[in-house]
Amino acid sequence: MKALVYNGPCDVQVKQVPDAKIVKPTDVLVRITTTNICGSDLHMYEGRTSMETGRILGHENLGEVIEVGNAVYRVKVGDMVCLPFNIGCGFCENCERGYSGFCLTANPGTAGAAYGFAGMGPYSGGQAELLRVPFADYNCLVLPEDAKEKENDYVMLSDILPTGYHATELAGVKPGETVVIYGAGPVGLMATMSAFIKGASQVFVVDEHKDRLALAEKLGAVGISDIGEAGVQQVLDLTDGKGTDRGCECVGYQCCDRHGKEVPNLTMNNLVKAVKPTGGIGVVGVFLPEDPGAKDDLAKEGKLAFDFGNFWFKGQKIGTGQANVKHYNRQLANLIHVGKAKPSTIISHELALDEAPKAYDKFDKREKGWTKVVLKPGK
Amino acid sequence: MKALVYNGPCDVQVKQVPDAKIVKPTDVLVRITTTNICGSDLHMYEGRTSMETGRILGHENLGEVIEVGNAVYRVKVGDMVCLPFNIGCGFCENCERGYSGFCLTANPGTAGAAYGFAGMGPYSGGQAELLRVPFADYNCLVLPEDAKEKENDYVMLSDILPTGYHATELAGVKPGETVVIYGAGPVGLMATMSAFIKGASQVFVVDEHKDRLALAEKLGAVGISDIGEAGVQQVLDLTDGKGTDRGCECVGYQCCDRHGKEVPNLTMNNLVKAVKPTGGIGVVGVFLPEDPGAKDDLAKEGKLAFDFGNFWFKGQKIGTGQANVKHYNRQLANLIHVGKAKPSTIISHELALDEAPKAYDKFDKREKGWTKVVLKPGK
Amino acid sequence: MKALVYNGPCDVQVKQVPDAKIVKPTDVLVRITTTNICGSDLHMYEGRTSMETGRILGHENLGEVIEVGNAVYRVKVGDMVCLPFNIGCGFCENCERGYSGFCLTANPGTAGAAYGFAGMGPYSGGQAELLRVPFADYNCLVLPEDAKEKENDYVMLSDILPTGYHATELAGVKPGETVVIYGAGPVGLMATMSAFIKGASQVFVVDEHKDRLALAEKLGAVGISDIGEAGVQQVLDLTDGKGTDRGCECVGYQCCDRHGKEVPNLTMNNLVKAVKPTGGIGVVGVFLPEDPGAKDDLAKEGKLAFDFGNFWFKGQKIGTGQANVKHYNRQLANLIHVGKAKPSTIISHELALDEAPKAYDKFDKREKGWTKVVLKPGK
Amino acid sequence: MKALVYNGPCDVQVKQVPDAKIVKPTDVLVRITTTNICGSDLHMYEGRTSMETGRILGHENLGEVIEVGNAVYRVKVGDMVCLPFNIGCGFCENCERGYSGFCLTANPGTAGAAYGFAGMGPYSGGQAELLRVPFADYNCLVLPEDAKEKENDYVMLSDILPTGYHATELAGVKPGETVVIYGAGPVGLMATMSAFIKGASQVFVVDEHKDRLALAEKLGAVGISDIGEAGVQQVLDLTDGKGTDRGCECVGYQCCDRHGKEVPNLTMNNLVKAVKPTGGIGVVGVFLPEDPGAKDDLAKEGKLAFDFGNFWFKGQKIGTGQANVKHYNRQLANLIHVGKAKPSTIISHELALDEAPKAYDKFDKREKGWTKVVLKPGK
Repeated sequence: MKALVYNGPCDVQVKQVPDAKIVKPTDVLVRITTTNICGSDLHMYEGRTSMETGRILGHENLGEVIEVGNAVYRVKVGDMVCLPFNIGCGFCENCERGYSGFCLTANPGTAGAAYGFAGMGPYSGGQAELLRVPFADYNCLVLPEDAKEKENDYVMLSDILPTGYHATELAGVKPGETVVIYGAGPVGLMATMSAFIKGASQVFVVDEHKDRLALAEKLGAVGISDIGEAGVQQVLDLTDGKGTDRGCECVGYQCCDRHGKEVPNLTMNNLVKAVKPTGGIGVVGVFLPEDPGAKDDLAKEGKLAFDFGNFWFKGQKIGTGQANVKHYNRQLANLIHVGKAKPSTIISHELALDEAPKAYDKFDKREKGWTKVVLKPGK
Repeated sequence: MKALVYNGPCDVQVKQVPDAKIVKPTDVLVRITTTNICGSDLHMYEGRTSMETGRILGHENLGEVIEVGNAVYRVKVGDMVCLPFNIGCGFCENCERGYSGFCLTANPGTAGAAYGFAGMGPYSGGQAELLRVPFADYNCLVLPEDAKEKENDYVMLSDILPTGYHATELAGVKPGETVVIYGAGPVGLMATMSAFIKGASQVFVVDEHKDRLALAEKLGAVGISDIGEAGVQQVLDLTDGKGTDRGCECVGYQCCDRHGKEVPNLTMNNLVKAVKPTGGIGVVGVFLPEDPGAKDDLAKEGKLAFDFGNFWFKGQKIGTGQANVKHYNRQLANLIHVGKAKPSTIISHELALDEAPKAYDKFDKREKGWTKVVLKPGK
Repeated sequence: MKALVYNGPCDVQVKQVPDAKIVKPTDVLVRITTTNICGSDLHMYEGRTSMETGRILGHENLGEVIEVGNAVYRVKVGDMVCLPFNIGCGFCENCERGYSGFCLTANPGTAGAAYGFAGMGPYSGGQAELLRVPFADYNCLVLPEDAKEKENDYVMLSDILPTGYHATELAGVKPGETVVIYGAGPVGLMATMSAFIKGASQVFVVDEHKDRLALAEKLGAVGISDIGEAGVQQVLDLTDGKGTDRGCECVGYQCCDRHGKEVPNLTMNNLVKAVKPTGGIGVVGVFLPEDPGAKDDLAKEGKLAFDFGNFWFKGQKIGTGQANVKHYNRQLANLIHVGKAKPSTIISHELALDEAPKAYDKFDKREKGWTKVVLKPGK
Repeated sequence: MKALVYNGPCDVQVKQVPDAKIVKPTDVLVRITTTNICGSDLHMYEGRTSMETGRILGHENLGEVIEVGNAVYRVKVGDMVCLPFNIGCGFCENCERGYSGFCLTANPGTAGAAYGFAGMGPYSGGQAELLRVPFADYNCLVLPEDAKEKENDYVMLSDILPTGYHATELAGVKPGETVVIYGAGPVGLMATMSAFIKGASQVFVVDEHKDRLALAEKLGAVGISDIGEAGVQQVLDLTDGKGTDRGCECVGYQCCDRHGKEVPNLTMNNLVKAVKPTGGIGVVGVFLPEDPGAKDDLAKEGKLAFDFGNFWFKGQKIGTGQANVKHYNRQLANLIHVGKAKPSTIISHELALDEAPKAYDKFDKREKGWTKVVLKPGK
């Protein structure tokens, strides 16, 4: 089959590899029809992770089931399924409490597994023609009859929509509340959409990229184009000096200031300032336990100079971590089904799998207009 | 009346001051019968805060109502009352949601007010014969008929028992779970008691002071006498390598390592290591937005070199801030009333008000055996 | 002042009465500018309650503060305020936990007080030129600068919008879920609006009145015009046979079947059938502890022949009772302020106070088109 | 193998039947070492259900895994396991939200499956030498190394301890609260134990059987020996007239008054009276959707003359249904492991499997002293 393979820093290639196949009786095999490039693919692409060369990338996958293992009871051949990026077993201590992103079975020794991801187990990604799905009865979201028609919406259930939604859950967004979101990339935009789904009264989105802010504004948010102190002040001014009820971090450790310098604590410390006392902050932007490639000494060891005193004094809460996709994808699928959520609106490019290397290059350079790339392996 | 007055760093004095009196129609006047010295009094005593000289200290207060304002409906003369250290109005946006520790009325411009506390409004403390209690119908916990008999238990409802309990709430402790608590001072001991009240299966308490650890063990905890990496390893070993379900920070910014050096990030980074992925951490130890007296540059600005990458990767949650005492004091009073909670067990000294300066000196030096001092102004 | 007085069953009159005035230092006096007739006023109007003759009706009130007691700190003369129909003290055991609808102070001996309401204390209603508001700092919702412009929206915060919202809270509605609502009267319509605010994917509204169903459909709901078994079947058919995630009861004890016969258990038993196993049901329609005027023996003693076996077998939950208005009105006011909630859309009539008796007559007869009447005492 | 078979009303027999065996690759086979008789076995025994003759009873099972299917990854041969009475798949919409008692897969057409239970699927019970366990990785609780030593404690995790705990969860019991429990049978006693585990300040247990009340008192509860109005009055008197914070129903539809007459609505209506306004009630006693054998017309159709008006007026909540055992069994196992929960204290008889028919007879007649029977098939 054809697949996108990681050769090394900033070098990916579409080539022929052995077909994915069923390994265990609880697996299914999926013919991928849509698979996205995600911002976290770029961490691997840039060589800032421990990703092994030769592996297939891609953790935002949707397709058709073409074969099922003999211990699969729920999922059928022909089902259109969307796969959560995290792989859970369904029966460990964490999965059974809904923490499918911290499965203790699928990647022994670590809490959490994923397709085509550094440090998340041996599973191949789905930027390919075929994908093996382990623990398939647990992991597959079987889509309704409009699956093919709304494929570009449903594929967002694999990661970025639940991840954006998770940010609002971790932050504790409730109807009528105000929310500030750092980052207007795909996840920040999905957090914006999620905050409005939950009845937020106002959403402020902070990002230095004007084209991305424009998308946030299209979703109903107020755009704030200064990621520094001035932006914080704007949020305070727009909330009678109080700060917002909730905040979401959708940028992560590679946050840059206006001058393009990486300042990993910028978003967190500004969130503490921009959110009111007693408020909640949800962090879905990725922060790494260590980052040898960083320039800053603290950052190398995965530490932030975090404004803990202010955070404590304001009595705020922080929730973090990757989204437990399964916890949200059924209800979000309902909203797509009835037309109340249309995450495909943020797609900027729909390309053939062969064009993936070019797309990685453009997306990694944050070239204007390259917001979200959807790949179609079957075409 | 007699009162303990702050003269400056490490200098407090019991002297005659003008009587406290009713100022507003919603006030009551309380004759203090028991008032404690708290670990956070020491921050002020040491001159590490903005505390004004000449002010009366004391925020852990209990006594008898001797006069009520003409707009007080619930509280009566003769009622024995315990006063939450934080002063709320009962009607602002925060109080009405139960965040009485972040009242927007009682100390305009800041969220939160308290008796005899730096930066928490102009209110005098209760290490004195009399105390003015504002918004009395809201703030007074009227005690049951055994108030005098169990005065040393009920007075702990003013601060340290609800504060310890708050740590377990912020951490999310549930029946059957394991908990690690950093700090075996009065608050850490109350967190230990609270964790067991909530049905924790095992509690590990980490502190370098052997006498304090012994108290924790008397409450049923496993004591761990190394606050560094070795202590973390012990916790991991005692939990099959997984880490505990929950963690509590009951030390604060003045945490010292074995060698007596202040290492403000020690407890938080070790909590991140000792608590399992998806676990929760409650932080009630005080961290300051700025600490000009600190030696460390980050600490001066109230920042910690926090292990954010590891925290994020483990998908943990942190809740912080002072306890909203009113949120817990009724239910905890019930437990004292029926004999299921006996917080007075940690009292090491019961002294007359006149002996307060000596007690401050001993307590500040962490002299062996000076765990918790209770003052009796009436005696 | 002029006020609407209850003379006896189906007999109300606008007449001169002594001016409302400040009685306690925590009161304010409000000049009413908008006051609504509520469905629960009709229970009293019809003589189906213990309402005393001579009392002033009206518990949905909004107006301008014209005088404040000397122990009022937050509310100022000139403030435009909306008053929750329930009167709380702010400091009793129930108010402090947010159960302002079950205040133990304002109506001693009963949990809960209200303006102009049978069995809810001695407080006069606001269908009058002036209203005395007790515990004013706690009870007044001070409105933003667009208060006068959006008066017909904000007045709905006194009761029906929070009551409808409460139904969805009690039911546990979450984003993406389906909801069935029995009753398309004002409260049912507000529950519909609330369910959509919270991100419900689909809302089914059941009512035999076609004009009311049309309003529900305008809000985005699917209307179901059969309140009996056939309606239940439609709901099941529209949810793949599963039933909805949540249900709301917005009718109450005077529910009638198609033939106009009172069948008090009709809505509850059909909700049990129409909601899925593990689902939640919120009940804000009024049910009385006794109803001597009922024809049915069980109903006389306030009992229902409730399908408890089915309810238990399905593992459902029920939450009941009047809305704790203060728990919701701030956040809902935010949504009105930014234009995301427009509850005034259900108003059918805006009348002078003098026209109130006619309005009572029409509304009580459920005359077509009389959905919601707003009175303007100042005009 | 030997097994206890249901022959018809009040007729059970231990006889040879074909060995249980693995049917699907996700099954394991367990050699039963301990299996209990449950109160709900008596509903079937008495012929008051649709139980088919010839089936093996027993849903409270513990034993050793002796064979595993080829798609079982977590459970190993030799593991000591306790089996939740309800059988879940782990991947349906309900299981994935933790509602393992309402599995949509294991018993198609109904939400919920169980071993040896009327209307809960075709699964054989465990009052036998061998038991087939479906979806074994999901359903087996693997016990720690003290499994054999504490077998009589751990077996209670199959049903009655989690069921009693569930009652307190549904009721919302929190530390310091008061609880009234109707029923001092095994489940009521486990609810009592659970309430204390959660930190309840006082527990009142209502039952007419003095021997059972004595057991409740041994657990620390206050016994109340009148199940009628007088008992309600005692609860009110013991709570300053307020009623308890929470209530638990642990009796079910066959509740009898003092004179031995079945009065199905007795416990529910008295709970509404004995619990305070805003309180919560958890119902784990079984109520049936229909009960053709009942004498009362309402009861035949599974209806109760429920005091809905009073319930609504007090703003109470009810949660119902069978316990989702998996939601609680891990944490409760921890408490057994460290010695903080000892549910075996309620066992009155430990018998060989051959003695089961006699035990059914005695237990069904509520013979004095027959509280809880544990069977040992291997002996």
